[in-house]
Amino acid sequence: MTPQSLQILTPNVPVYKAADAEAYKDLVDVLILCGGSATDLPHQTPEFAQWFHVVDSFDTHAAIPEHFQAVDQQAKENSKVALISCGWDPGMFSLNRLYASAILPCGTDYTFWGKGVSQGHSDAIRRIEGVKDARQYTIPVEAALEAVRSGSAPALTTRQKHTRECFVVAEEGADLQRIQHEIVTMPNYFADYDTTVHFISQEELEKNHSGIPHGGFVIRTGKTGWNEEHNHVVEYSLKLDSNPEFTASVIVAYARAVYRMAQKQDFGCKTVFDVAPALLSPLSGEELRKKML
Amino acid sequence: MTPQSLQILTPNVPVYKAADAEAYKDLVDVLILCGGSATDLPHQTPEFAQWFHVVDSFDTHAAIPEHFQAVDQQAKENSKVALISCGWDPGMFSLNRLYASAILPCGTDYTFWGKGVSQGHSDAIRRIEGVKDARQYTIPVEAALEAVRSGSAPALTTRQKHTRECFVVAEEGADLQRIQHEIVTMPNYFADYDTTVHFISQEELEKNHSGIPHGGFVIRTGKTGWNEEHNHVVEYSLKLDSNPEFTASVIVAYARAVYRMAQKQDFGCKTVFDVAPALLSPLSGEELRKKML
Repeated sequence: MTPQSLQILTPNVPVYKAADAEAYKDLVDVLILCGGSATDLPHQTPEFAQWFHVVDSFDTHAAIPEHFQAVDQQAKENSKVALISCGWDPGMFSLNRLYASAILPCGTDYTFWGKGVSQGHSDAIRRIEGVKDARQYTIPVEAALEAVRSGSAPALTTRQKHTRECFVVAEEGADLQRIQHEIVTMPNYFADYDTTVHFISQEELEKNHSGIPHGGFVIRTGKTGWNEEHNHVVEYSLKLDSNPEFTASVIVAYARAVYRMAQKQDFGCKTVFDVAPALLSPLSGEELRKKML
Repeated sequence: MTPQSLQILTPNVPVYKAADAEAYKDLVDVLILCGGSATDLPHQTPEFAQWFHVVDSFDTHAAIPEHFQAVDQQAKENSKVALISCGWDPGMFSLNRLYASAILPCGTDYTFWGKGVSQGHSDAIRRIEGVKDARQYTIPVEAALEAVRSGSAPALTTRQKHTRECFVVAEEGADLQRIQHEIVTMPNYFADYDTTVHFISQEELEKNHSGIPHGGFVIRTGKTGWNEEHNHVVEYSLKLDSNPEFTASVIVAYARAVYRMAQKQDFGCKTVFDVAPALLSPLSGEELRKKML
């Protein structure tokens, strides 16, 4: 694909080659990197942080420390602000884990995802022989949510927290029983979960399962009191019709903060943990105190 | 009451007169002010911000701008950090209003309180002739919560959002009908709400209504998409067995942040909006990124 062949929804917005980005380094306030976490962002974010203040949505949780290190070095050497791992998890969910655990140190927290579409799990099903198309939903178990909210701090297995529901379009004449077996026994993806498989037509998939909804819950319960006699439940939840559009909305709010941190020369790699909330809002400190505090 | 007559739960913690506070100005890392918003804090916080880094829980929403001004001047002149209006509303609820509105600018937010005890409303009932004791619960209307969560952005009257439930101990021979009438027609406090009044015995009040639970919900719904076709619901809720103990827990976490801001010489009056989340946690930035992001 060339910049000339790319059709974007907003007319008259210029499109350039990523390879030519450096030429625009004095024209861009904040560069938003939309690449994938597996192979794009690990090299793109440090590279572009040489020339731009950047935001990325790197979401491989286990690799965040390494990614932070690489980006921090480039950002500091070049007096740039680089905010990584922005979105809702990592992102808003991380913030809620942090706030609730700082307030209730004597407690336990839980993250549930869904109901929502997992692209990775949908892809895994599509790679099975005889599968034409598939959509996988991750669903939190209502009984587990209730147990957590009760303050009993239950120990929950993977199976007890989420179920997986799969809508599969099979090729004509495919062995449905074999496909179902391959799905529910697939290690890492499905074997540790109670998984339901529905075979449906391509039309039905397109009609009822074309959206990319997602969401989830961060719940922390904790105790206070001279004899730990008081329970508290802090719950944050998201119910999103469009996972990518909400993620983009979070990123845009943080791009505003990155610009402001750059003005204050607060350079280096940052995460949502390092950003004072007021920096996200278009309102002034005075307006915020008057209208939202 | 003198310092000598005061019995506190933790043995061997010294107790001093507030009037002698200045003498301890080099010994206290952060001073937490626990006075009331009506008459204590408006003069105490500016006064003590001359000598100490302070946190208060000033909660008269409409008077926050004026309080901020007075505290900011003293804190800046004396190189102190003063965090005001800390707790859960103002506090954690304010934060959630800010985050959600920055992410979903095209949306509406709602705050519901309860189920919980309102001290102000309980006091108002106790001032009625013939009332010995009383406890008032503020209760969010479930149907209103559901309407908000649906994303329909309903316009809700005061009456549609909350109901009020009163447990009243009457003096012997008191005119119960008159008391009930005085409660439900009381301007500002009850007249705009559907209010239920139960007359109970002092024993029952002490047995079933001696706690100080509270909580509530901050919900923002918003739209994204080329034709605003996607709805999103962001919900934060608290369910607290003890309102004062949870408020104290928030204040202690912010006292940690105030100490750190003082070390960085980030002086002046602050609110929760100005505090980067990482400053609240005992964990280092590295640990936070590894464990919570």
